[in-house]
Amino acid sequence: MNFREKLRGITQENNSLLCVGLDIDSEKIPDFLFKNSNDPYFEFNKSIIDATKDIVCAYKLNMAFYEVLGIEGFILLEKTINYIPKNILIILDGKRNDIGNTAKKYAKAFFETFNADAITINPYLGKDGIVPFLDYKDKCSFILCRTSNPSAGDFQDLNFANKPLFSIVATKIKEWNIFDNCGAVVGATYPNELKIIRKKLGDNIPLLVPGIGKQGGDISTTVKYGTNKKKEMAIINSSRGIIYASDDKDFADSARKSALLLKNEINLYR
Amino acid sequence: MNFREKLRGITQENNSLLCVGLDIDSEKIPDFLFKNSNDPYFEFNKSIIDATKDIVCAYKLNMAFYEVLGIEGFILLEKTINYIPKNILIILDGKRNDIGNTAKKYAKAFFETFNADAITINPYLGKDGIVPFLDYKDKCSFILCRTSNPSAGDFQDLNFANKPLFSIVATKIKEWNIFDNCGAVVGATYPNELKIIRKKLGDNIPLLVPGIGKQGGDISTTVKYGTNKKKEMAIINSSRGIIYASDDKDFADSARKSALLLKNEINLYR
Repeated sequence: MNFREKLRGITQENNSLLCVGLDIDSEKIPDFLFKNSNDPYFEFNKSIIDATKDIVCAYKLNMAFYEVLGIEGFILLEKTINYIPKNILIILDGKRNDIGNTAKKYAKAFFETFNADAITINPYLGKDGIVPFLDYKDKCSFILCRTSNPSAGDFQDLNFANKPLFSIVATKIKEWNIFDNCGAVVGATYPNELKIIRKKLGDNIPLLVPGIGKQGGDISTTVKYGTNKKKEMAIINSSRGIIYASDDKDFADSARKSALLLKNEINLYR
Repeated sequence: MNFREKLRGITQENNSLLCVGLDIDSEKIPDFLFKNSNDPYFEFNKSIIDATKDIVCAYKLNMAFYEVLGIEGFILLEKTINYIPKNILIILDGKRNDIGNTAKKYAKAFFETFNADAITINPYLGKDGIVPFLDYKDKCSFILCRTSNPSAGDFQDLNFANKPLFSIVATKIKEWNIFDNCGAVVGATYPNELKIIRKKLGDNIPLLVPGIGKQGGDISTTVKYGTNKKKEMAIINSSRGIIYASDDKDFADSARKSALLLKNEINLYR
């Protein structure tokens, strides 16, 4: 089953566009887990997955939070990926980029070694740094287009012949989408840009939308501008706002409640 | 000792601007190692380091080649980093990038967990995705400016008010260099751009220059345009051309010969 089919299946099955970010952080996960468990990080991820697997369409694992733990982090990454139910999408958020010869190795690492359904990649190197990822036709590569951070505009807003860079990147994403396996990353914190990009990409390219919750993106405009005509094809991510909703023994219950609230609010605007 | 001091020290000690890229590749390392050794990848890296440690100023490890091996790759990465003599610079080439909160984790992963002297990062997200790396004042962050690949120009050559994006990035790098810990990545395959960038950055910002050897960059123009007035501050990388000079039992000797030839050719133009 390819990425598109899996996305369609789980969006319908769980009636959800919500993606939960499993951004494990030693400073934020409940203290008691470190006392009670031999494997506190995995215990945390397992509990969050158990509590939310009927609510989400995807889990996103940001590589930074695993790399910082060194070898232990990669064991954790592998165990977490194996624990996620097969019907739910796994997005590995690594924002990788390199020259063709090396990008091929990253593509193999993420799609084969780690077995992700989808990844994030950075477009700065141009087409030949992107193509090796697109050779995995059944997967999805979400290309950074407009990021959610405050400085996103430093380069992404520069105008080239009256078109901002992020819009030129969007045009390229549409051009590169020969195998129907491109996606775009667009931050919910920039609703106008989200609107422009969705319009440019048409109805058939999925968007990965971070930036709601702690980062402040608005849910109604995210759904309005981020989804396609069928009110699908947007994967709306929240990490900290859900998984760290409580830092006490009720953390999994609190995560479930926050995820359910967010899923329902998203659906309200669909 | 901070990065700048270490760079000055090893450049003088080994009289070298050469960086060797330890891009481990199962398809290219000698077959006999897989038969004769329990740890063929480490055996390979160890032999290359032993054969070149008096010739180089730095080793560059591109993360893609380690990530593709999964957990085994990270054990190898750690062992290789620990094996490199303390006077030689370790550059971890990951081209990482993310929003501030997450970039902080990458910075910690690369500078603390993996203990690199220097890293490569991608500028697409703008300043707040860069600053967390620069908080490590004794390290060096080489920011992608003009990459060495054929499609580099797709976005990097776009003109904004008559200035190409790579040149705007260079201006920002100079602006971000408050703690004297910024560097720039500029491909040897684009000598004119290298010249423009060195001029813009002045004499005090180191360049990491990939693209000679297999990628075709010219050595004389690389040295001429890439170094500063003292003919220093350029770290010129070759990977495949050195470490895979032979795929037979003489691989380490061949690597030494190729490294020595290249070091001497670089010095010829200094």
